[in-house]
Order: sequence, then structure tokens, then C-alpha cells
Amino acid sequence: MNIAILGTGMVGQTIGTALIQKGHYVKLGSRTSTNEKAIAWKNTNGSNASNGTFADAAAFAELIFICLNGNGTVHALQSAGVQNFNNKVVIDLTNPLDFSNGMPPSLLPQYCNTWSLGEEVQKQLPTAHVVKALNTVTAKLMVDANKVNDGNHNLFICGNDIEAKNKVKHLLAENFNWKPEHILDLGDIKYARMTEAIVPFWVAVMQAEKTPMFNYMIVT
Amino acid sequence: MNIAILGTGMVGQTIGTALIQKGHYVKLGSRTSTNEKAIAWKNTNGSNASNGTFADAAAFAELIFICLNGNGTVHALQSAGVQNFNNKVVIDLTNPLDFSNGMPPSLLPQYCNTWSLGEEVQKQLPTAHVVKALNTVTAKLMVDANKVNDGNHNLFICGNDIEAKNKVKHLLAENFNWKPEHILDLGDIKYARMTEAIVPFWVAVMQAEKTPMFNYMIVT
Repeated sequence: MNIAILGTGMVGQTIGTALIQKGHYVKLGSRTSTNEKAIAWKNTNGSNASNGTFADAAAFAELIFICLNGNGTVHALQSAGVQNFNNKVVIDLTNPLDFSNGMPPSLLPQYCNTWSLGEEVQKQLPTAHVVKALNTVTAKLMVDANKVNDGNHNLFICGNDIEAKNKVKHLLAENFNWKPEHILDLGDIKYARMTEAIVPFWVAVMQAEKTPMFNYMIVT
Repeated sequence: MNIAILGTGMVGQTIGTALIQKGHYVKLGSRTSTNEKAIAWKNTNGSNASNGTFADAAAFAELIFICLNGNGTVHALQSAGVQNFNNKVVIDLTNPLDFSNGMPPSLLPQYCNTWSLGEEVQKQLPTAHVVKALNTVTAKLMVDANKVNDGNHNLFICGNDIEAKNKVKHLLAENFNWKPEHILDLGDIKYARMTEAIVPFWVAVMQAEKTPMFNYMIVT
């Protein structure tokens, strides 16, 4: 599959490399086509790896991962061109974290409590099918759920389009070892408020557990 | 032990009854000493149960549970008299939930993201040792952790005083079957921001799981 990753940070590179290893064609998108991190990533990931602008990447792909900093997400999507997302499945991994007051982070006030970055992404890309997913775990775990407790722990997703959510479940199962029965669909994209709001809590648990390699298993 | 419960709702009554059954003396506090729910609770819980005003209850107790509605918490504490909390351990179970826009709830904006009800309670009661605890699970599970997964799941607490947190851990283990190794201390009372912020998420999971009898187990 042709897949775009918007964002060249640790999350974007980790997802991109994992998808390359599964045989997909991956284009890493950034503000400019000469981004050094994107070029370095391309050069170490073989001939299925490429890079370009946000618009190049979105236009190339049938499926798009958004792995941007919360602060820059809206601007990046606008520069990517809304038409490049038409009818595509968009997996939104962003978190509107605000580290400006130190640790633990809070959320950017404009994406907090009664609004979320997931909803904003869907608003910016009205013809795309946005699915919020993977934003509640650390990058290494995103791409291999088996790294923790033999894959027995939960991922929380949400989005307005059921077919898109099913495609994402399938993709996460096929490529990243997420067990479909552990992927919990919370509802429409409004539930991004909830899955983003638990990320400062995740940081607190990480501090207490002294590792980012953990997740939550819902038990009854 | 002489224990006060501030609040006569389902949480307060459930905690109060469980403590009576463990042999404690429990006074249920409410706005007036003639509160019908408090009197009905007293009449069904034997001679160790009593009721009174918020001030009566706080003055009576060596340990105080705050089980109030988020909206009314500050006013209730002010009417209880700050001097009645001097050097006492106060377990804060409150959640600043705002249901005014329907389900799922948001948080009351004044106790959201960069402030919390836990911090506000500590501010209102500066000479008390406030420990935020139990606010992340349903009432029946609060008082018997074994009701879910043989007690194997996590409780998240925070507060400024380590000795008070140890007393609360001990109390939860002795009375409510919480395994000490599953009680995770996140840090000072500021972390109430995190444990309150996951409650709207809890509601979303409850909707998806179709039961409130669940909790999270951290797996690594």
C-alpha cells in the first residue's frame, strides 16, 4: 500500500520504518522536501522509502498517518492541501501536549476538555475519514503490541466512519500485532477528547513506573 | 476509628456502609442535620452509624472522606469549618464532572487541565493532609477491589504528605481489599489533574464495555 507519514519525529520515523518492513511504500512528509531528518530516514530504509512535502506525501498515499506535534498540526494540514485527503483514511496520532510549564505536561488550552485535536483534524479535513488511534502508547509499542504482556492490553480508537475504523483495526492487526479484540472503539471523533486527555496521565504513570513500555488492560 | 463521610450520595453511602461493616464509627455529613437520605442511611446501618452537618461530621472524625458533587465541594468544605480538618487525613473522592452538555461529561472548566478539584480541596483545607484516591472507579469496586479480576488492577493516588498516603494505602488494603502493590502513588496533589482528567475517559469505556464494573491493570 502507498502510505504517507506526516511528521519526521520519533513517532513518524518509527511508524514509517515498521511499515516499510511490512512491504509498504512509505513517503515521509515534512514542511520542505529537503528536510534532513526525512532524507536520513529515506536513506536508511531502502527503495520503498521516499520523502517530500506534506502535500507530496498526502497526494502519494491512499492512507495517511498524522504524526505531527500538536502545536503545528493545523498549519501542516493546511499546507498539505485539503484535496489530497479526499475520501482517504487518516490515522491521527497527535497529542496536544503543552510542555511550556514543565513536567508533567498539560494540554494546549484550545484542544482541551470540550474540544480536541482529533476533532480539529476532522474539521480541517472534512472529506477525509479521520480515525484517532495509537496516541495513547509509546512509539515502540505502537508498531509491535507484543512488546508488552504478549499483546494483551487495550488500544482506544474513535472516529466518525465505521468502515474507516474497521480498516484501521485490520491494518493495526496485520502490521503491528494489535489483537482486534483488544481494540476498543469508543465512538465518534468527539471521543478524541477522552483519549487525548489521558495522555498527561500516561506521563504520570510513566514517571511512577519508570518506563514508557507499559499499557492498560481493561479487566472486569 | 471515627470516620466522617461528607456527602450523602451513592458513593458516600456505599463507603459509609462498608466502613460500618468493618467496625468503624461513621458519621455521614450533609448540609443540614435533618437530611432525609442521611437519616435513612443511619437508620439502616446500626448503632455505629450517625449523621450530622458537615461541621459535625468533620469535628467527630479522625479521618474524613469527601464524597461530594464536584460543583458543591468548595461551598460544603467552607461550611464544615476549616479548623475541623486540622492535621487530619482527608481522602478526596470528588470529580469535577460537568453533565450540562449531556453524555459523555466534560470537566468543570475551573478544575480542568492546569488545576484540579484535588488541588482546590487542599487549598481550602491547608492544614489537612489531602489524598486523592478512589475517584477513578465505581462505588461498588471502591469498597471491594476483589469484585474485579481477583483484585488485580490499579488504583492511582496522589497527595503532598507521604505519611498520609501510607495511611490511606493501609486503610484501603485493610477495609476494601486493595492490594498495596497495585496502589500507584503518582506524586503530589497536582497529579489530581491527571486522575480527574481520566474520568470522562472512564465514562466512555463504561459505555463501550456496557458495565461500570471494570478497572485498568497496568501491564509491562
